[in-house]
Amino acid sequence: MMLDNTWFVEKSYFEKFAMAWKVRKKLHSEQSKFQKIEVLQTESVGKLLLLDGKTMVSEIDEFVYHEVMAHIPYMVARKCEKVLIIGGGDGGVVREFVKHKDIKQIDLVEIDERVIEVSKEFFPECTQGLDDPRVNILAEDGIAFIKSKTNEYDVIIIDSTDPEDFASGLFTSEFYKNVSNALTEEGIMMNQTENPFLDEWGVGKIYKNMRAQFPHVQSFTAPMLIYPGVFWTFGFSSKKYQGTQLNPDKIRHMQSLERSLKWYNTEWHKGAFALSNFHKKKIGL
Amino acid sequence: MMLDNTWFVEKSYFEKFAMAWKVRKKLHSEQSKFQKIEVLQTESVGKLLLLDGKTMVSEIDEFVYHEVMAHIPYMVARKCEKVLIIGGGDGGVVREFVKHKDIKQIDLVEIDERVIEVSKEFFPECTQGLDDPRVNILAEDGIAFIKSKTNEYDVIIIDSTDPEDFASGLFTSEFYKNVSNALTEEGIMMNQTENPFLDEWGVGKIYKNMRAQFPHVQSFTAPMLIYPGVFWTFGFSSKKYQGTQLNPDKIRHMQSLERSLKWYNTEWHKGAFALSNFHKKKIGL
Repeated sequence: MMLDNTWFVEKSYFEKFAMAWKVRKKLHSEQSKFQKIEVLQTESVGKLLLLDGKTMVSEIDEFVYHEVMAHIPYMVARKCEKVLIIGGGDGGVVREFVKHKDIKQIDLVEIDERVIEVSKEFFPECTQGLDDPRVNILAEDGIAFIKSKTNEYDVIIIDSTDPEDFASGLFTSEFYKNVSNALTEEGIMMNQTENPFLDEWGVGKIYKNMRAQFPHVQSFTAPMLIYPGVFWTFGFSSKKYQGTQLNPDKIRHMQSLERSLKWYNTEWHKGAFALSNFHKKKIGL
Repeated sequence: MMLDNTWFVEKSYFEKFAMAWKVRKKLHSEQSKFQKIEVLQTESVGKLLLLDGKTMVSEIDEFVYHEVMAHIPYMVARKCEKVLIIGGGDGGVVREFVKHKDIKQIDLVEIDERVIEVSKEFFPECTQGLDDPRVNILAEDGIAFIKSKTNEYDVIIIDSTDPEDFASGLFTSEFYKNVSNALTEEGIMMNQTENPFLDEWGVGKIYKNMRAQFPHVQSFTAPMLIYPGVFWTFGFSSKKYQGTQLNPDKIRHMQSLERSLKWYNTEWHKGAFALSNFHKKKIGL
């Protein structure tokens, strides 16, 4: 059976595996200073954002990634007043953080401001938090930005693409050292760490780099239907707390909020850190 | 980007989503009395078994499905001497059950004996347990087989394809009633319950049918890289126990066994039953 050009196909795993979505219409296409930005209207996952031909955000599953990236570190942090997001120009992680009233400042450092503009046009449900007065949008290179920061952020989110091209620097030990320096003594780093079945990018090496800079490094998974192989891993790195040590002061507030969330709840949070043998082996445990 | 005929493509979700594997060679193809049976040598998931053009078993991920289907009910059951598997002609679930010495009898009721023969030839790592003297292989229709059984099995596994054609009867309330009758008073039923993102088969209805016959119905997920959308749900139905109530007498034995398992461990087991809001909503909780 062949797929014709009415499908968008993303090949991965050294071009040996593919996922594909039936396309109704191409809504947008441009070449920014950094990458090709496209938006497709699909038959299966609603609107789909592509960067350089790779799936980034879809209407059907964006809540999974955005909720876990924001609420997991928020619920563990004892103080979460100042947050930094590197990447994440679609605004989804910001949308989740602004739901917490004790957060005072959210810096979004997105290298490509065209991603933000295109997201505002086609994914308004993602970008609705960007107008919050606590949010500062900086069109800068996150790798350079973080070098000058010390003991400043309570939580840092690395909301990046795969470890290639200009994003490859976001997976190095040197970068994680700079993140650690930019964090407070109780700080938490969250990052996306790829699919361990289709281990195209060396997930073990990524975790080794994280462990070189943080005393507590853990992993969990959540499904991203549009990403290669779906079974997606996320990293939780901290100077002080385990990922399952939820802040008791926040539990009551979250119990009320989580009724409106589409994925996250505190029971799921605690369970997600219990890993399969496969997952442990892949990240070097 | 198009995919040519060097790829095997499985379309799902009403032909709007697809996953594809680069094929090196077709190893086998036949039309049995019930279905088309094919084996492909792929570049990404090793050997791949297809039934009527749908992915069933691959070398790269078969351990996930087979380990969770066997060890989760085994670890909850207070007595697990007699086991029934409906479907499962690849032998993978049997392979996992025969690792437990207290199991006295395993009945495998597979409607299509050609699936067993083809699996023996191409997936010997799956079928290695079928020669165990405790295993009875019955080439019969599981739906008819179970009607005559009462209070007989400690655990029943429904290792089926999607709810269509001759497998559709394995997802009805009437069938679950017959399974319940065939189980002892402490019995456990396990089944595969599809992908809730690409909800092609009505996962909510499947769970409703299960709840109509069992007082305890729970769900968990494990990834099946070759199944549509990967994020796979499994059902745990019991007359007496919750899925997280592990049998304390078995913990020590499992601690020694689980070092040789590729997916299952008791910590993962307990965590897997903590569901996301999305999962709860899809199964009607």
